[in-house]
Amino acid sequence: MQRALALAATPGVPLGPNPRVGCVLLSPAGDVVAEGFHRGAGAPHAEADALARAGAHARGATAVVTLEPCHHTGRTGPCSEALLAAGVARVVFAQSDPNPVAAGGAEALRTAGVDVESGLLADESARLNRAWTFGLVHQRPFVTWKFAATLDGRSAAADGTSRWVSSRPSRLDTHRLRGECDTVLVGTSTVVIDDPRLTVRDEHDLPVAHQPLRAVMGLRELPAGRRVLDDSAESLHLVTRDPAAALADLFSLGRRHVFLEGGPRLAAAFLRARLVDEVVTYVAPMLLGAGRSAVADLGIDTIAAAMRLEPTDVTVLGSGVETNVRLTMTPRHDTVVAAHPSGSASRAALREDH
Amino acid sequence: MQRALALAATPGVPLGPNPRVGCVLLSPAGDVVAEGFHRGAGAPHAEADALARAGAHARGATAVVTLEPCHHTGRTGPCSEALLAAGVARVVFAQSDPNPVAAGGAEALRTAGVDVESGLLADESARLNRAWTFGLVHQRPFVTWKFAATLDGRSAAADGTSRWVSSRPSRLDTHRLRGECDTVLVGTSTVVIDDPRLTVRDEHDLPVAHQPLRAVMGLRELPAGRRVLDDSAESLHLVTRDPAAALADLFSLGRRHVFLEGGPRLAAAFLRARLVDEVVTYVAPMLLGAGRSAVADLGIDTIAAAMRLEPTDVTVLGSGVETNVRLTMTPRHDTVVAAHPSGSASRAALREDH
Ligand SMILES: NC(=O)c1ccc[n+]([C@@H]2O[C@H](COP(=O)([O-])OP(=O)(O)OC[C@H]3O[C@@H](n4cnc5c(N)ncnc54)[C@H](OP(=O)(O)O)[C@@H]3O)[C@@H](O)[C@H]2O)c1
Ligand SMILES: NC(=O)c1ccc[n+]([C@@H]2O[C@H](COP(=O)([O-])OP(=O)(O)OC[C@H]3O[C@@H](n4cnc5c(N)ncnc54)[C@H](OP(=O)(O)O)[C@@H]3O)[C@@H](O)[C@H]2O)c1
Repeated sequence: MQRALALAATPGVPLGPNPRVGCVLLSPAGDVVAEGFHRGAGAPHAEADALARAGAHARGATAVVTLEPCHHTGRTGPCSEALLAAGVARVVFAQSDPNPVAAGGAEALRTAGVDVESGLLADESARLNRAWTFGLVHQRPFVTWKFAATLDGRSAAADGTSRWVSSRPSRLDTHRLRGECDTVLVGTSTVVIDDPRLTVRDEHDLPVAHQPLRAVMGLRELPAGRRVLDDSAESLHLVTRDPAAALADLFSLGRRHVFLEGGPRLAAAFLRARLVDEVVTYVAPMLLGAGRSAVADLGIDTIAAAMRLEPTDVTVLGSGVETNVRLTMTPRHDTVVAAHPSGSASRAALREDH
Repeated sequence: MQRALALAATPGVPLGPNPRVGCVLLSPAGDVVAEGFHRGAGAPHAEADALARAGAHARGATAVVTLEPCHHTGRTGPCSEALLAAGVARVVFAQSDPNPVAAGGAEALRTAGVDVESGLLADESARLNRAWTFGLVHQRPFVTWKFAATLDGRSAAADGTSRWVSSRPSRLDTHRLRGECDTVLVGTSTVVIDDPRLTVRDEHDLPVAHQPLRAVMGLRELPAGRRVLDDSAESLHLVTRDPAAALADLFSLGRRHVFLEGGPRLAAAFLRARLVDEVVTYVAPMLLGAGRSAVADLGIDTIAAAMRLEPTDVTVLGSGVETNVRLTMTPRHDTVVAAHPSGSASRAALREDH
């Protein structure tokens, strides 16, 4: 199952609205017959991928798969039937399918006489498919807000300079997290002022093969020649100031994980709308005493109303003056975020490059 | 030596300007003959304390001591001579005496035929006596600035409320750190606005036996009835706005470790004067979006001039929404802090209670 999870997590796969799934076929003697994984919407499911590689060797094999085999016909046929047709004798899966449309695979296989076992490393698979599962439940993308700040909460000095509040190790870490999302989102001001590339780059500052969508949100036209509009990745201008509307548009475009990178005003709008699901902060051991605050006004005027977060991870990145403390947190909203009604007023101007 | 260090660190000892020292006397067979530690200015040194308890059993023993035995006559006689007179055969010590006046004990003992070994756990002893050693070199107290802040660098909400930016585990930790210092220092505004007690209290909110001096700095009279003036600990009003002058006064009063607890303006004054030697921050997973900044203006207007700190420790305190990340840091001043000239213009109005 560890191997199946590693296959599921194969980097650089443009998943779109589909889950990550890996599959290993084992012979009755326990040898690996074939491996497979899902390469995104339209491509074969992990089981089908592995079965195609195994051919006749699939007969009598055990299929180890990270997600319950699907039981519905979408762009591809149901995996439950494909496994039966190939003569697989046993199926071990991790996470049960949370998608009501596709579930029922385990039951169908059992009914057909296949030995079925579930739950092995289910949490690991669920974590890998966190955004996908979230989308099924909430009908909007999962939102990770990332910001870097000094100890006194500044994201830039008084003169606007901010290179670098974050350290090199934390910037590399940010690129890694960006690469795990399918959309990077910023406000128009960040594009106008900073002209960021918003691509995922490796330690040599070279873009990786698969890039998330670069989305910019706000009513203003984007000035021509901005780097976010170049052809190094897809770009999208969401001509709205409504966070829920922007997320609805992104969801309908198959986006499941938004990496919200600011600036302070856009972040504040998402926080106020309770549309931030995870916060990743890089705290730099630095004092400015003045300058731009990392988050704009939240309408909070007393300590009892403070927005509280629950850390799920604290990691020290780098050392010496390069040390950054990365805090990963879950906002404590007691309210459940309702799905945004379809047919929203937001107007998305999609710009597909290449 | 571990035992000797534990003796040296015995809590609740009002040291004044003296180092912490522990001593264990071992028989030639390796059994503990007697133990001793230094209880502060005027009290016997650790070696003398142990020798007194051992009596005639000291003959032929090994003295394990955390600091090089002194070789000068202060309020008590030189320990080197006391060890010789008692017939101690061997001396093992940790830290060499950094005090030029008292050093030379090892050499004197060796000359007299005693087997002398040094350096065992020297770093641990040096750490224990960090503020004392610092005082010998810099002729002023070591300054630890402590502050609590939200992720966006706020120490209070817009309406001034700040109970609690810190979590309970971090408040307990603060009391522990306070108790390791001999002076707590705040600005007059903090006293006027918050009326804090500034005592060291245990987990039941009861004051511990030995309390640091509570010093308040600023030109205004302290309003009568403020809790910092009550008789639960000593109090001192430093009628000055000059950080160097305040530290010179505290040093001349035998104070070696100042715990600077704010507020933001006093902290900024010490930072600007490069008179902060250690920074302890408690970062709370909380956002306010507005409110008082944890540190006032530092005269920094561009990122290249940011005050950079080097973390020496990152500790996660508490869990869930009570999580606080404690960062302990050393400011990176390239300038060496000069000792403040004696005969300063500051006027200290000492108020001794009971
Ligand atoms: N430290 C960090 O991690 C970090 C990250 C990113 C950016 N930054 C900094 O942030 C600065 C820009 O700050 P900012 O706060 O002005 O930029 P921003 O949040 O990127 O952009 C604000 C703009 O976004 C648009 N917008 C869309 N929806 C909005 C909403 N609901 N509420 C408010 N505005 C909305 C508005 O533009 P329209 O008028 O076009 O509608 C608004 O003017 C940059 O200079 C950059 O350096 C820091
Ligand atoms: N989050 C935390 O860790 C923390 C800790 C402590 C306090 N606080 C908050 O801080 C608030 C007070 O803030 P604050 O900055 O006004 O208070 P402050 O720094 O405690 O006091 C400022 C006052 O200190 C005196 N002072 C002495 N030397 C000074 C110098 N070199 N520069 C400037 N002032 C000097 C001045 O009073 P004179 O006019 O009398 O000279 C000045 O008005 C309190 O309400 C409290 O809640 C927060």
